[in-house]
Amino acid sequence: MNNYKLTIQYDGDRYKGWQRLGDSDNTIQGKIEKAISVLTGEEIEIIGSSRTDAGVHALMQVANFKTRQELTEERIMSFLNHYLPPDISIIRVEQVDEQFHARFHATDKTYLYKVWNRAYSHPFMRKYSMHVVKPLDITRMRQGAVHFIGEHDFTAYANAKSKKKDSVRTIHALDIQEKDGFIEFRVSGNGFLYNMVRKMVGTLIAVGLGEKKAEEIPGIILSKERLQTGGMAEAEGLYLEEIRFKQQK
Amino acid sequence: MNNYKLTIQYDGDRYKGWQRLGDSDNTIQGKIEKAISVLTGEEIEIIGSSRTDAGVHALMQVANFKTRQELTEERIMSFLNHYLPPDISIIRVEQVDEQFHARFHATDKTYLYKVWNRAYSHPFMRKYSMHVVKPLDITRMRQGAVHFIGEHDFTAYANAKSKKKDSVRTIHALDIQEKDGFIEFRVSGNGFLYNMVRKMVGTLIAVGLGEKKAEEIPGIILSKERLQTGGMAEAEGLYLEEIRFKQQK
Repeated sequence: MNNYKLTIQYDGDRYKGWQRLGDSDNTIQGKIEKAISVLTGEEIEIIGSSRTDAGVHALMQVANFKTRQELTEERIMSFLNHYLPPDISIIRVEQVDEQFHARFHATDKTYLYKVWNRAYSHPFMRKYSMHVVKPLDITRMRQGAVHFIGEHDFTAYANAKSKKKDSVRTIHALDIQEKDGFIEFRVSGNGFLYNMVRKMVGTLIAVGLGEKKAEEIPGIILSKERLQTGGMAEAEGLYLEEIRFKQQK
Repeated sequence: MNNYKLTIQYDGDRYKGWQRLGDSDNTIQGKIEKAISVLTGEEIEIIGSSRTDAGVHALMQVANFKTRQELTEERIMSFLNHYLPPDISIIRVEQVDEQFHARFHATDKTYLYKVWNRAYSHPFMRKYSMHVVKPLDITRMRQGAVHFIGEHDFTAYANAKSKKKDSVRTIHALDIQEKDGFIEFRVSGNGFLYNMVRKMVGTLIAVGLGEKKAEEIPGIILSKERLQTGGMAEAEGLYLEEIRFKQQK
């Protein structure tokens, strides 16, 4: 079997998220699988590194699929980009080792969250960032961010519907930068629970607005109580930005 | 009378352009006039520097309006940004000399045209740039661009519906830059005919694709024949970027 790795960008606005839901094809996975099935004449399932939620964007999603067909990387790239709608782009195709698995071999992911922090809206970024009208205190948010770093049980930051038994995750970095009215939260870790990044950003925004104190965060995490985290930041500001994989032998 | 100058940004996608058309309010001017009329309780007409076309964006449009009301700049800014839809933003309000006229006192304007020049589409910029799949030759386009600079009769670059008698305009600069897959055309002049920038960019794209030669441009301008210019670039890639005014005494 030939194994192909795809690097994908998408605007999540119109979609119900990455993961295919039954026969509905209003998902990113569904759209790409349909295109590959047309190309190969086989029923193809693709494996994505990350199951981004409804409305969430990707600057770099990675997926792989296997086929009996011998296809050049150029042919796959060209066919898929012609077939797919303009809000989903395949930016790279690589033939990889048959063992490569986009989900199991992902060791580390980075999400980016964009906030537009001016009194007026940003006409061009209104669907690609969350608008927070009141000024956010960056220093306080940075003081809060450090409390997320390290290995924690993130039950408080999981979605109530989450069925994962193990809520322990390790956050490697949570960086906050301000530029020309935008505030960018960049968080890296070995994995994230459903809605976890949006809830973390929600807590930090509450800190930035003075509604919560930075020092409250350790207690919120320890409480394992979902209601303590404060609001969840909107999907439209969230981007899957990077996925790192373990070295292939 | 108090005279207020507004600096405005908008995403032109949903609108029939700047200029109010009868009672239709699906224009930028119509939306802003309605908001100011609610604020002042007067029937207000605003004067825009540039009549951007349907679908065209503005990073910086300037307008002015006069009212008997005494209003602070902050009050106008805050009211309008609350009242207007999120694809139109008032980014600055200044009380100015009663003589200031946004159209008559504009001496110079800059338009920006964005082309996305990769084989695949750009998911986030697909409504804010024109997608040209085949690679454009920047050197040739720059060789073509110089022929537009200076004072010319731009009848060939006017719209057939244009009723302006005088088609002579002076282009000060036409700069072309490439960055991360985008090609940006930046053109400054003392004024532009209806559709003129989009037609100029259309000619330059034809040159960049090898469909026309750079040296043909002087002949196209001299011909005053609209059919010679080649295609018109799409509205969605065009931005009014800057307006300069004569110094107030």
